[in-house]
Amino acid sequence: MLSDKVQVNRQALIIDCDTGVDDAVALLLAFKSPEFDILGVCTTDGNVSAEQVARNTRIIREIAGREDVPVVIGCPRPIVRDPVEAGHFHGESGLGDLEIFEPRAPAALGHAVNFIIEQVMSRPPESVTLAVTGPMTNLAVAMVMQPEIIERLGPVIIMGGARSEGGNIIASAEFNVFADPHAAQVVFTSGCPITVLGLDATHQVRATAERRAAVRSLGTPAARTAGRLLDFAAGVAAELMDGEDPPLHDPCTIAFLLRPELFATRACAVLVETGSPLTIGHTAVEFRVDPKTASIHWVTRVDADGVFDLLLERLAL
Amino acid sequence: MLSDKVQVNRQALIIDCDTGVDDAVALLLAFKSPEFDILGVCTTDGNVSAEQVARNTRIIREIAGREDVPVVIGCPRPIVRDPVEAGHFHGESGLGDLEIFEPRAPAALGHAVNFIIEQVMSRPPESVTLAVTGPMTNLAVAMVMQPEIIERLGPVIIMGGARSEGGNIIASAEFNVFADPHAAQVVFTSGCPITVLGLDATHQVRATAERRAAVRSLGTPAARTAGRLLDFAAGVAAELMDGEDPPLHDPCTIAFLLRPELFATRACAVLVETGSPLTIGHTAVEFRVDPKTASIHWVTRVDADGVFDLLLERLAL
Amino acid sequence: MLSDKVQVNRQALIIDCDTGVDDAVALLLAFKSPEFDILGVCTTDGNVSAEQVARNTRIIREIAGREDVPVVIGCPRPIVRDPVEAGHFHGESGLGDLEIFEPRAPAALGHAVNFIIEQVMSRPPESVTLAVTGPMTNLAVAMVMQPEIIERLGPVIIMGGARSEGGNIIASAEFNVFADPHAAQVVFTSGCPITVLGLDATHQVRATAERRAAVRSLGTPAARTAGRLLDFAAGVAAELMDGEDPPLHDPCTIAFLLRPELFATRACAVLVETGSPLTIGHTAVEFRVDPKTASIHWVTRVDADGVFDLLLERLAL
Amino acid sequence: MLSDKVQVNRQALIIDCDTGVDDAVALLLAFKSPEFDILGVCTTDGNVSAEQVARNTRIIREIAGREDVPVVIGCPRPIVRDPVEAGHFHGESGLGDLEIFEPRAPAALGHAVNFIIEQVMSRPPESVTLAVTGPMTNLAVAMVMQPEIIERLGPVIIMGGARSEGGNIIASAEFNVFADPHAAQVVFTSGCPITVLGLDATHQVRATAERRAAVRSLGTPAARTAGRLLDFAAGVAAELMDGEDPPLHDPCTIAFLLRPELFATRACAVLVETGSPLTIGHTAVEFRVDPKTASIHWVTRVDADGVFDLLLERLAL
Repeated sequence: MLSDKVQVNRQALIIDCDTGVDDAVALLLAFKSPEFDILGVCTTDGNVSAEQVARNTRIIREIAGREDVPVVIGCPRPIVRDPVEAGHFHGESGLGDLEIFEPRAPAALGHAVNFIIEQVMSRPPESVTLAVTGPMTNLAVAMVMQPEIIERLGPVIIMGGARSEGGNIIASAEFNVFADPHAAQVVFTSGCPITVLGLDATHQVRATAERRAAVRSLGTPAARTAGRLLDFAAGVAAELMDGEDPPLHDPCTIAFLLRPELFATRACAVLVETGSPLTIGHTAVEFRVDPKTASIHWVTRVDADGVFDLLLERLAL
Repeated sequence: MLSDKVQVNRQALIIDCDTGVDDAVALLLAFKSPEFDILGVCTTDGNVSAEQVARNTRIIREIAGREDVPVVIGCPRPIVRDPVEAGHFHGESGLGDLEIFEPRAPAALGHAVNFIIEQVMSRPPESVTLAVTGPMTNLAVAMVMQPEIIERLGPVIIMGGARSEGGNIIASAEFNVFADPHAAQVVFTSGCPITVLGLDATHQVRATAERRAAVRSLGTPAARTAGRLLDFAAGVAAELMDGEDPPLHDPCTIAFLLRPELFATRACAVLVETGSPLTIGHTAVEFRVDPKTASIHWVTRVDADGVFDLLLERLAL
Repeated sequence: MLSDKVQVNRQALIIDCDTGVDDAVALLLAFKSPEFDILGVCTTDGNVSAEQVARNTRIIREIAGREDVPVVIGCPRPIVRDPVEAGHFHGESGLGDLEIFEPRAPAALGHAVNFIIEQVMSRPPESVTLAVTGPMTNLAVAMVMQPEIIERLGPVIIMGGARSEGGNIIASAEFNVFADPHAAQVVFTSGCPITVLGLDATHQVRATAERRAAVRSLGTPAARTAGRLLDFAAGVAAELMDGEDPPLHDPCTIAFLLRPELFATRACAVLVETGSPLTIGHTAVEFRVDPKTASIHWVTRVDADGVFDLLLERLAL
Repeated sequence: MLSDKVQVNRQALIIDCDTGVDDAVALLLAFKSPEFDILGVCTTDGNVSAEQVARNTRIIREIAGREDVPVVIGCPRPIVRDPVEAGHFHGESGLGDLEIFEPRAPAALGHAVNFIIEQVMSRPPESVTLAVTGPMTNLAVAMVMQPEIIERLGPVIIMGGARSEGGNIIASAEFNVFADPHAAQVVFTSGCPITVLGLDATHQVRATAERRAAVRSLGTPAARTAGRLLDFAAGVAAELMDGEDPPLHDPCTIAFLLRPELFATRACAVLVETGSPLTIGHTAVEFRVDPKTASIHWVTRVDADGVFDLLLERLAL
């Protein structure tokens, strides 16, 4: 448990994820950051099946010693399209070559969609922050069921989409948006203030051999776990990404909440392609908007060293 | 209240509607039919706004003297697309020129999506029938949140779609599907056994002047209300449909449940166009399927006299 | 050769086809009709490959003894989409089980697209009639290269599209439009006066056993050929269309030019789906247009006996 | 006229353009480069109307003193979509604020589509180079009419498309591809060896104030004309592109032919979005291809100084 001293004015946070390799590192970073009052971790279908995602999330929670945080299971499928999984990037279990065990603490009762609605509606306006590191199914369904949450949500930080980096799962789309493009379209057109960390940002944050070594050398359980996950990602990237170092996608969302000064953003509007097979999941990012009224900010540059310094600092705890 | 005698073996029924003119007649028909144990009437956005739909539904419930049935409010918007309303067909209030009053009994607590999930999951498998006379938003969201309901649902009867009749709201799409095509695609591809009453069926059931006179002459409150609604629909049809008699769309769903022998169906698969503006909401109905495994049945012919005889019989109660 | 007497005031006609079974019958009907001055028969890719189509057209021309009519080869592929052929309906050669031989007379020099442009631009305005019984590639490309032809064309009669009959090649599209939907969109939105014989019309004209026997009994070479083609079509329909009698698609275009009083039409606008895989080639037929300005007429009813009487009369020549 | 000495082994070149401001500079560069045997300049609809494009091309030809090169008029419209023009970037005439005059020499007889086919089919295989600086309508229609040209074409260099730069006319598409996406799809999927200069490349080549001054100072008629065009582009860019220096799109194609060593390319496949309004004209660039079999090369980096040195050298002639 975190010390009492820092619990004053902590940021109420819901994390919504599809726990694969980099979601797991994001969770470790969040669990080790006393600035957050993590209301719950919601899970969805994505990198691996919904069932695996829920188990993986509980495993990481146990490793981090944070069984005080509820894990709330959400939608086990995208809204409209057939499920697309990314096991080739995250290993069969979704957690690379980590040992998979049955966690002690169960998932919470209730559905993630209702959890999001209830937390947002019952707490003070704009007091609940949401970090989404997987497909946006849960948040989108919550917005459809009860649109009042849109005005009451606090900051929403999303890992998803791509512009200058094209795509990863297909030529013109990033995986999280591709996996539930209809959900992304609901979220991005909701009017809700959103900061987007697409591939343009996360491809700037690479787990180089040196950085991975620094993580491993910390020696804490969280660091050991993160180190193995990053080494697994490095192996996959070496094979599937032409030998590039693996990008650190999801932890950027948590880093942005903790150290926004490490990120440069640009106001924009984002629409998601939902109609065409060739470009489904593509994020059309329009910078020619009035920055005074734009609800979305696109992260264009990241101080990768700063992000890794933060990660090392917290994984050492 | 209906007499105790007929309550044995009644069909547990949820009606999901966007109460405009013809939904109202469907509700009256259902409320007056002792064969049903109506678990609740769920409402959605559609012909008029979600707020108006909920009020209209409570008004019709009060006119029918059925405040024992809960009205449960659902999604106030389609899943992905912008709302499309059909006020020109249903009058400003959605109930033609009926007097609008504030009903005595309130709506139930809770959300229609959760209501559908809870009823279906808590009752015996395949024991809950669902009649959907508006956009399929609530049912689709329930299927996304908890796909287990798909296997547990009993018969699902839907008014929506068109094949040989082309469309009404646009050249190639019918209003209910057009209003939430993504929801319809979720429902029609769910594998759930569904009977579809599209325009091909409902355009065969016309409220001619003679039939309307017969309704009016019954003299009960339900019949008076139905008569005014049908007369309003006749006025609209005269103006907007080249003088044709108004088709009786939504009551066909309830009539099908009561008198399936009045309807001929054909096994098919249905996919919904969600991608293209020209054909969005189009139902691609493929009859070249194996009838033994097809989950959808498309109503091709209706005995319109039989449907009106039934309607007259019940509105007389 | 036809006698001189009837050559006065003959209708200048270009036929554009993808000679399969029913195109061949259409050609025989046209070749035997003295009302036409057939400027040329243009060929395109479609039912079978462009090369087969050109040869088949020359075979039918030779059987009809009309080597005075040039066969002009056109585009060997659709504009944008990959070629789709329909060999299963037309036999491997495209002419059912007819004997395939190398015709005496070659195809004309030049390209069908240029032929259409040159004929239309060099003859008096509105004097050239066009009957299209295959994909509309040649006509569309001519309209793109030289839009002036649109105002100078005479009547254009097209076999293609479907509304109340849904589709044949897929649930919601007819083959000719499906095979080159972009071409159909160019043609149908050109503003050119067009009469469309879709499946709604041609499915009313069936080559029943009795009608086929009447054709066979005529004994002329043209009738013998037509009889074999129709018998082949009957075999295919028995197998692939649930035992229905084969519809007589393409000859309806020629019959319409000769006996328009056998056909009822309705003013409309037609747009073609070109974007979505589910509905590509679908014709969105909008009847809610101003009949005074509508450029397209959709054939809604056909006097099938009249069409067959005409066919018998001409095949007897 | 160019001197005889250099005419040995010149590269047979067809330029296909929609002469606006930067096409004009590309034409000047080509006209002043003795390495080319310019067979003809084909025109199409694009930046301004087809009629204006043809006149502008003849004006530039006259300024360059190259009336020996035929100007051949092509398709006055895109294949399927409605024309989109870009007058706001090129001035009302398409040539910025250049004086518009009626050129002495007329356009050639014949159509650009037939010209391309005839030149490619009548000359030795792979001997004709094609540089396309506008919408690809003419080339695509030629490929549809006579696919044999695909195997006989020499190098094809195209200005069009975008990946890392997103788009210019809309968020996710570049103007030339957006203006006729169907044509671009035909060309990019033809299998023809193509080098593509998209915005990713051309945005690296900016006509800075210093470079523009250098052009103006050359004092030749071609340089004076180019200088005025570039100054006009600078004014437009200052207003519409947030004060950026104007990119030099089209001349890059000619520069690539003359100095390929200034350009870095990467093997890829390119598909064009033709179906969805949100992304129509988007180029999906897939680098995960086998470089040994890929037919398309995407320019990723340009030596902008080298391009301007070349331009200055030739405009000085």
